Amino acid sequence: MSSAPTRDTGQDHVWTVTEHLEDILATVRPLEPIELQLLDALGCVLVEDVTVPLSLPPFDNSSMDGYAVRVADIAGASEEYPAVLTVIGDVAAGQGEQPHVGPGEAARIMTGAPLPPGAETVVPVEWTDGGLGQGPVSRMRAHSASPEGASGQVAVHRAAEARAHVRDKGSDVKAGDRALAAGTILGPPQIGLLAAIGRAMVRVRPRPRVVVLSTGSELVQPGEKLDPGQIYDSNSFALTAAARDAGAIAYRVGAVTDDAEILRATIEDQLVRADLLVTTGGVSVGAYDVVKEALQSVGDEDEAGSGVEFRKLAMQPGKPQGFGSIGPDHTPLLALPGNPVSSYVSFELFVRPAIRALMGLEDLHRPSTRATLEAPKALTSPAGRRQFLRGTYADGKVTPVGGAGSHLVAALALADALIVVPEDVESVEPGSEVQVVLLG
Amino acid sequence: MSSAPTRDTGQDHVWTVTEHLEDILATVRPLEPIELQLLDALGCVLVEDVTVPLSLPPFDNSSMDGYAVRVADIAGASEEYPAVLTVIGDVAAGQGEQPHVGPGEAARIMTGAPLPPGAETVVPVEWTDGGLGQGPVSRMRAHSASPEGASGQVAVHRAAEARAHVRDKGSDVKAGDRALAAGTILGPPQIGLLAAIGRAMVRVRPRPRVVVLSTGSELVQPGEKLDPGQIYDSNSFALTAAARDAGAIAYRVGAVTDDAEILRATIEDQLVRADLLVTTGGVSVGAYDVVKEALQSVGDEDEAGSGVEFRKLAMQPGKPQGFGSIGPDHTPLLALPGNPVSSYVSFELFVRPAIRALMGLEDLHRPSTRATLEAPKALTSPAGRRQFLRGTYADGKVTPVGGAGSHLVAALALADALIVVPEDVESVEPGSEVQVVLLG
Repeated sequence: MSSAPTRDTGQDHVWTVTEHLEDILATVRPLEPIELQLLDALGCVLVEDVTVPLSLPPFDNSSMDGYAVRVADIAGASEEYPAVLTVIGDVAAGQGEQPHVGPGEAARIMTGAPLPPGAETVVPVEWTDGGLGQGPVSRMRAHSASPEGASGQVAVHRAAEARAHVRDKGSDVKAGDRALAAGTILGPPQIGLLAAIGRAMVRVRPRPRVVVLSTGSELVQPGEKLDPGQIYDSNSFALTAAARDAGAIAYRVGAVTDDAEILRATIEDQLVRADLLVTTGGVSVGAYDVVKEALQSVGDEDEAGSGVEFRKLAMQPGKPQGFGSIGPDHTPLLALPGNPVSSYVSFELFVRPAIRALMGLEDLHRPSTRATLEAPKALTSPAGRRQFLRGTYADGKVTPVGGAGSHLVAALALADALIVVPEDVESVEPGSEVQVVLLG
Repeated sequence: MSSAPTRDTGQDHVWTVTEHLEDILATVRPLEPIELQLLDALGCVLVEDVTVPLSLPPFDNSSMDGYAVRVADIAGASEEYPAVLTVIGDVAAGQGEQPHVGPGEAARIMTGAPLPPGAETVVPVEWTDGGLGQGPVSRMRAHSASPEGASGQVAVHRAAEARAHVRDKGSDVKAGDRALAAGTILGPPQIGLLAAIGRAMVRVRPRPRVVVLSTGSELVQPGEKLDPGQIYDSNSFALTAAARDAGAIAYRVGAVTDDAEILRATIEDQLVRADLLVTTGGVSVGAYDVVKEALQSVGDEDEAGSGVEFRKLAMQPGKPQGFGSIGPDHTPLLALPGNPVSSYVSFELFVRPAIRALMGLEDLHRPSTRATLEAPKALTSPAGRRQFLRGTYADGKVTPVGGAGSHLVAALALADALIVVPEDVESVEPGSEVQVVLLG
């Protein structure tokens, strides 16, 4: 692909979808890492190699509820000829001091409790009479029934080898091992491992804060009264939801009227809480396309990468697009077209990968697959434009829903896939194989 | 499968995984629906058929930036012999009053603006001289350059049929159509459609509030100092994260000491914000298994379905499990075993489906598939127990990670699949086909 400086950047140049996406991804850098509480880091990318500070388990401990004993004392034990041992007390999990288990002695031990000094192995309670003198038991008596701990005698009905039912110190991980590598995405088991090795905070790339605003004097907040010529604002809702779905913390500003000064002031106001700004509408060739008007002049000519560029893309829907960065921190801004289907498709193609790039994820794109087109007639697509039609996918087949019109939001709500018709294809016959992007 | 009343419910009865899950799903009912703001309803299940109150678009409108004209006035127009029309003003989106377009007249019109009275079709601005008298243009002059709106004359270079570039009222959806059916999961496009038809609130089943607490006197909060015999609490972190991942609003209470009274008081305290309670630890046969002690007696004997039952399951890990409901609202409670791998596997098998059932989702389970076992030696599994080993899955193959030990949290953090070894299988040779549950 050509690099930006050598491209023809004239007003009427038409860019490919791939070029536009490359430019966005070349500009959007992963967010600076911060320390977060474990649960706030769910779904985030780790930026440090995490080393284990202490072995897990930190001490030899019992994997069963039972009795900690010496091996020789229970050699040859059976139900008929049990080994009868003196019970010297309890070893509960979390108990600091453990009794010493001498010859002929047993300590009642709980799962997870440290193997007490002197003991060599553990016999499960089910292999004993539980100290009741009445044959095998299936459980221990509750501690609350004898708060002073177990005493008396226990009959053991089976022998055990040394270190049976004992989890060795360090058998999970050892101090100095690498628990997790930088780049790991933190899901629940990874959060669990970090907690297990004692980490309360972890260094990750945070979720990006995405500010979504729609533009258009015709837009009315849902739930309010619609006057003639007005429609409800749907883009700011759909894209805020989509940004959250993509992993962002998304703020919906709502609809801004078609006034370049108001729009510029609103965007500047929002910069403080934005890692990425997304606007819809006002990017085409009309006289009231105020996003273009407001943002074309915001760049600092002395700063590379500053300013927003408006382009025509070889795609349908979504031909007019704006992209650049604004404000003192060069906050990236994507200006999407205003038709609801155009803005949603543009979000999928450009904003979602940008959000994932900000998170430091490597896998930026939706899964895609080949599918057989099921349709009553051939699909048509304009020459020289990559078309993204809405469809439903199942079992290797895809069926278009609705037409190509970029105002068809009801059909979009039925779709779970985008059918991709390449630039050089003007017609796709039913039964042909097509590329399909799988949504959600 | 047998139904509950005919089962042997003796203390030493061993239940199958399937029986236990069936009992849970027979008890957990979808949450009562509530009205939520659109964006709060993302990912929730709609419980009403939503009917379209107004047609979309609500009026005939332009799909292009251009000029609204009468068809006869531009018949035969070409760049050489343009149709020259008198421009009577602008029609912007959101503008209440539109000018009447008479013979020989044109109104400059923006995308989304209503087709003004008298006009029959729209010609894109690219088919005109934009009123500048200098050949074809590619865009309009900004409104701010002439705030009073367009005037003068425009030369149109191409003819258009009636209603070209016009989106008909109701061409997306018509008033009275069903926009979305009850049972629809609200993703971004569905949220967009609801906004587009003017809905600010929507009736859905809310996300369940899940309270997670771990039990054990040995548990220390990560980040704090570990004394001898203590370990860090990891279960409450892993399961809170997992509950959020499953769609719940999850609260981590943290670790509660092994004291039945304190535990009972804590659980009663948390009931007010819980749609589901999850505990870990204290459910086995040990003397300090206080969850069992605290909850075995909470049920109201006169109330069907009240109380928590503790069971042995034919599974590994995860043999001891508790399930029931507590409190005045019969809040469901799942008491999971305390070993980290046991509690995580139990979450996947029982809690995640319960959360999804509370949400009213139909698809409760993780996807599963068949895979070829790649392993240096045969897997062994105890007879009569369904074993869930951790593995990594790729391209139809699964490789075990770590061993069967239920304390191996480092290996769990490397896994992305559970390998299922059925109850009647004691050994699985490398190269065999196994069932695999795909995690996240």
